[in-house]
Amino acid sequence: MTSRLSHVDDRGRATMVDVGAKEPMHRRAVAEGFFVARAETIDAVMNGRLPKGEALAVARVAGIIAAKRCDELIPLCHSLPIEAVQVDFERVDGGIRIVGSASVTGKTGVEMEALTAVSVAALTLYDMTKAIDKQLRIDGITLLEKTKVRVPQPDVG
Amino acid sequence: MTSRLSHVDDRGRATMVDVGAKEPMHRRAVAEGFFVARAETIDAVMNGRLPKGEALAVARVAGIIAAKRCDELIPLCHSLPIEAVQVDFERVDGGIRIVGSASVTGKTGVEMEALTAVSVAALTLYDMTKAIDKQLRIDGITLLEKTKVRVPQPDVG
Amino acid sequence: MTSRLSHVDDRGRATMVDVGAKEPMHRRAVAEGFFVARAETIDAVMNGRLPKGEALAVARVAGIIAAKRCDELIPLCHSLPIEAVQVDFERVDGGIRIVGSASVTGKTGVEMEALTAVSVAALTLYDMTKAIDKQLRIDGITLLEKTKVRVPQPDVG
Amino acid sequence: MTSRLSHVDDRGRATMVDVGAKEPMHRRAVAEGFFVARAETIDAVMNGRLPKGEALAVARVAGIIAAKRCDELIPLCHSLPIEAVQVDFERVDGGIRIVGSASVTGKTGVEMEALTAVSVAALTLYDMTKAIDKQLRIDGITLLEKTKVRVPQPDVG
Amino acid sequence: MTSRLSHVDDRGRATMVDVGAKEPMHRRAVAEGFFVARAETIDAVMNGRLPKGEALAVARVAGIIAAKRCDELIPLCHSLPIEAVQVDFERVDGGIRIVGSASVTGKTGVEMEALTAVSVAALTLYDMTKAIDKQLRIDGITLLEKTKVRVPQPDVG
Amino acid sequence: MTSRLSHVDDRGRATMVDVGAKEPMHRRAVAEGFFVARAETIDAVMNGRLPKGEALAVARVAGIIAAKRCDELIPLCHSLPIEAVQVDFERVDGGIRIVGSASVTGKTGVEMEALTAVSVAALTLYDMTKAIDKQLRIDGITLLEKTKVRVPQPDVG
Repeated sequence: MTSRLSHVDDRGRATMVDVGAKEPMHRRAVAEGFFVARAETIDAVMNGRLPKGEALAVARVAGIIAAKRCDELIPLCHSLPIEAVQVDFERVDGGIRIVGSASVTGKTGVEMEALTAVSVAALTLYDMTKAIDKQLRIDGITLLEKTKVRVPQPDVG
Repeated sequence: MTSRLSHVDDRGRATMVDVGAKEPMHRRAVAEGFFVARAETIDAVMNGRLPKGEALAVARVAGIIAAKRCDELIPLCHSLPIEAVQVDFERVDGGIRIVGSASVTGKTGVEMEALTAVSVAALTLYDMTKAIDKQLRIDGITLLEKTKVRVPQPDVG
Repeated sequence: MTSRLSHVDDRGRATMVDVGAKEPMHRRAVAEGFFVARAETIDAVMNGRLPKGEALAVARVAGIIAAKRCDELIPLCHSLPIEAVQVDFERVDGGIRIVGSASVTGKTGVEMEALTAVSVAALTLYDMTKAIDKQLRIDGITLLEKTKVRVPQPDVG
Repeated sequence: MTSRLSHVDDRGRATMVDVGAKEPMHRRAVAEGFFVARAETIDAVMNGRLPKGEALAVARVAGIIAAKRCDELIPLCHSLPIEAVQVDFERVDGGIRIVGSASVTGKTGVEMEALTAVSVAALTLYDMTKAIDKQLRIDGITLLEKTKVRVPQPDVG
Repeated sequence: MTSRLSHVDDRGRATMVDVGAKEPMHRRAVAEGFFVARAETIDAVMNGRLPKGEALAVARVAGIIAAKRCDELIPLCHSLPIEAVQVDFERVDGGIRIVGSASVTGKTGVEMEALTAVSVAALTLYDMTKAIDKQLRIDGITLLEKTKVRVPQPDVG
Repeated sequence: MTSRLSHVDDRGRATMVDVGAKEPMHRRAVAEGFFVARAETIDAVMNGRLPKGEALAVARVAGIIAAKRCDELIPLCHSLPIEAVQVDFERVDGGIRIVGSASVTGKTGVEMEALTAVSVAALTLYDMTKAIDKQLRIDGITLLEKTKVRVPQPDVG
């Protein structure tokens, strides 16, 4: 594996990687991240005085929308007709684990879409709780898995 | 400090906090985050085979643009006429420290703008290096400081 | 009241109304609209098999985000730093009544923001229920009230 | 027909419906809506003192742009490479009938795009006439028709 | 006049100029540009077989919308609550002269908004005529004038 | 070649050209434009006191992002999943030549994407240098080349 950055051409200029010659495949990516907060904060978000899920619903929607607009946020990222996005939350020790996944049938992967969904969902939780907790932190945003499978050709005979 | 979420009203519905009655002040926020990668990756980004700064320039621009569009990404965040955004990168042990700041003269703070600038700059570095490093991670996104000062009144006598 | 359209100048060209000379006031607008659906559909949305409020939460968030981006949707509408947006749902005979309000301290009103919040919340409910109900309809989107009050001047003596 | 909402998974969370396994077909949708106003207002819009069509042109453009951005407005709506959008206006008793259509070759339909085109065109007319008519209303936004046909396979032999 | 770029700090990094300490003034800018095309093309656009103005109306709306979104297009440009935008077209020898103006009460000027309005209006004419004319060109986009005047203080005694 | 505008239907209304029946091909377009400025300004941008390339990097990123959002800027332009965008700068007599290219596998061409990339890159240079040079101008934005080739069919036997 060389250390040549994929988005920088041989003269060092930023460029979108040309994916024109790549095969359209069914691609999927899963990312995770952690919203770290005090236990009372997590309580308020997860199952506290709120109607179950409203805060999470807002963060989920924010993550899904952001995944669809990933190409606007990440300058050299391709526009892709995302086929599914999912954002889930799970209480873990010290915080909330956020898992985001995205899938597409296209010429390039959706890692950035999954990572963006997680990041923006986490930022949204940050926004909704920053008035009650001064020690919030977002940690461990990383790609968990990335798969691609060939698209079955329709019968043409 | 109660655990009432600021963006949820007394019947539990998501809502934008009404800032109409707040005083316009000069507000500033600073946030940080860490882009964790292999040493060779950091080399390639910071001072490697690239013209100095192009990769960082792309990430910096992405962070600045995202800060200005924070209200589109974070559902309950206010639209603010941001007066300045800055995104800086510093090599640290094991990665790159990203510091983002934003300021505004307005009725509510710019914490989310600073945090968004850091997050999107980090995601952009992730995007540009994911082909050469399979163990990337974004860590420790948090608010460092938040200040507000009264705006001096113009002379009116 | 003349029939001269406000957004068309004396030579008939579309134009943004110049609000430069208007006084910044605290302005508020409230709009309503109706999402008309079968009773089973309303059940599913309001209090059915869903965790209380998730479908409504999605529609509410959609309405709030749209209100903030109203100037991008409505070509001759001004960009305003909205201070609050609220979207509420109420079960009524034959459907769901949606009430949206917006407020700002600015030189022009927020009628379009309130109307846009209602419209997009209704469209979002349409999107979420169109697979189970083929007779959906959005009705009666209209402005309910519009107020403006002078902003108290800060003491300067 | 069950009453299970299509965008909510079995645990009640909002989610984008996964359309990855669906067949790309040529899909088309037509929607309508009514802009209700006083006769003088309709005159001013349709054939009054304005160069023919300028007000309608603005509303038409607004509707077309909104259809293309439907996935940003409606949180769980898919991004689709729309192939055509049309927005037309017809004077009817008591108002203006707006008909919007959209088509795509894709894995999911364009109902929301057609409905959004109609809604935003109507909101734009509202914006342009609200200064001269205090009894505006948007009514009867609904889907008129939805079709899909298989895409002919190119010859491959 | 030094040759220090205004958007690059003393260590050479791109940055938004901090306008926090500047006085809010009423600022206005006017820009022009030329859409160069064959005479038949200009005829078709200006007064040809089209209902008078539809093509121009589309270009005008595009320019106005773009001016309002200038801060999203130009990375280091500030978000400003634009108070008026105007885009006009005039037939000149060899093409169409486009004049765009913008005004705001704010801490920084609206040159980029006026220039962006002209550029996007010209691109829109290009898009609408490129099928009938293969020698289109956009020329002479430049700032014509830029003014600022102090905002009269409201009486406070 | 007739003078019928492609985006206006037979009754003179603006409309998106329906590309549904067109064959998806690999399409590419190249456009150019000139940023005209004083020699000292060009020096500052190209190789002056700045870290090599930061100003150009910002303009390049702006152009690339704008190309991806071309369908939002140009009202009747189609949304396309752009596969590559490139923006380059070359010092020429009296200014900087900007060359932008875009490619896609799709049903319609990417001329507007290439032209938009050039225009927005030029506007960004304008923005970054307008404080040091009062005689800036953008000239000669035009399409240089446009190609399409059939997409090789995958083997299906």
